Amino acid sequence: MDPLDHVRIVLVRPRGAANVGAAARAMKNSGLGDLVLVAPRTGPASLARVMAVHAADVLERSRTVDTLAEAVSDCALVVGTTARTGFYRTGARDPRSLVPEIVARARDGRAALVFGPEDHGLSGEELEVCHRLIRIPTSPAYSSLNLAQAVMLCAHELFLAAGACRDEPPAPDFEAASSARVEQVHERLRSALLRIGFLPEDNPDHIMRALRRLLGRAGLEEREARILLGLARQIEWYAEGGWREAERRRDAGRKLK
Amino acid sequence: MDPLDHVRIVLVRPRGAANVGAAARAMKNSGLGDLVLVAPRTGPASLARVMAVHAADVLERSRTVDTLAEAVSDCALVVGTTARTGFYRTGARDPRSLVPEIVARARDGRAALVFGPEDHGLSGEELEVCHRLIRIPTSPAYSSLNLAQAVMLCAHELFLAAGACRDEPPAPDFEAASSARVEQVHERLRSALLRIGFLPEDNPDHIMRALRRLLGRAGLEEREARILLGLARQIEWYAEGGWREAERRRDAGRKLK
Repeated sequence: MDPLDHVRIVLVRPRGAANVGAAARAMKNSGLGDLVLVAPRTGPASLARVMAVHAADVLERSRTVDTLAEAVSDCALVVGTTARTGFYRTGARDPRSLVPEIVARARDGRAALVFGPEDHGLSGEELEVCHRLIRIPTSPAYSSLNLAQAVMLCAHELFLAAGACRDEPPAPDFEAASSARVEQVHERLRSALLRIGFLPEDNPDHIMRALRRLLGRAGLEEREARILLGLARQIEWYAEGGWREAERRRDAGRKLK
Repeated sequence: MDPLDHVRIVLVRPRGAANVGAAARAMKNSGLGDLVLVAPRTGPASLARVMAVHAADVLERSRTVDTLAEAVSDCALVVGTTARTGFYRTGARDPRSLVPEIVARARDGRAALVFGPEDHGLSGEELEVCHRLIRIPTSPAYSSLNLAQAVMLCAHELFLAAGACRDEPPAPDFEAASSARVEQVHERLRSALLRIGFLPEDNPDHIMRALRRLLGRAGLEEREARILLGLARQIEWYAEGGWREAERRRDAGRKLK
């Protein structure tokens, strides 16, 4: 059972159809599907569908009710969101610290995350329905989040927390160079740089250590390792007499221009 | 100094004016203010202003340039975002694991976070300009995020990471190379590698981009920059006839042994 199937997003008296659509998209992006609208004051449903893009199914399955109490009547945990501080809003926590509890509770029962209207937020009475409060940290320069953005941030935290609970393997999909390959790069570079007298014969490893550290910090990918091997080969080739060929090519190239 | 002041958001060929406005709002919500648009294809600026609400100042201070290279020319770290996997996109990490590095790098230099167009994402060539890649984890049921939502998630992670870092004393025990110095390293390496025929005359920048990306990812220290400049000089010296001298020294060294 996926705990995200038991998490409901409740939008109370939303004004913007575009916001509702964008919220539906954010939900589906984050593995959520249960949307309830409380007394929406939104305009054309068509605008919501445009913003939902491929999450129109979330809108179609959504329910509309008259009160917050109705929307969360079957929920074991009701979490309100607020942008403000003050009476009724003490003890608000940030989403990251609260989502593990929401996910845990959504295993046995249903949990709801409640968002107030764009202009005024949840009323005092509505906040009293909530068991816990979330306040999303924002810059004091502009603390008011767009409704769909607030939904996105909370839904994303839930998605990550649920993923962490699933104990998914992190799936590292980039092709890192193997340590044997990295060692090969060091060896060939060292030999090439000795060949052209860049590394001093009497103490080549002082500078080589710096280069190893630099490459180690970047973390070589396989493609980059191959490029550096090619570079080392080219330097050796050049030093072994390839410079005659290289000069000839340069001259030929110049004549063509 | 607030590292967030040194983080730039770059939107490449955005289509939606509403998305640009919503991205500006998300930036200001998260303490960011430096917005650059690359070849925008957006409609009326008025729509962007409506969506920006109280972040119109971010839009007004934003700059518009023709290419991504221009947008990030002064940036020590360039982080691209991608929704896809595949060639050029290996090694993408999630925002949370990467933002501490972005914040750390933004103390000494400028860092850019780059978002591609709504429909196609960044091109292969643009991804090559990026030192690191971010992929935001999403549900496989619907993995495509709205542009402004993607900006919000990344900006919020940066805001949180910068807040966490604000308590820590900055402990740079090394001297980072300036962007001018890094540019000098690129120039001299390019010229030296052309000289020995490692970079092809007809398309030197393909491989150079890979090297720039590698060095950018590591973040050059001043000492390392000087070593690489020395290496470039040595290669040019060798190619200009220094090989005779180098061979003489090698022979002399062998005789001594």
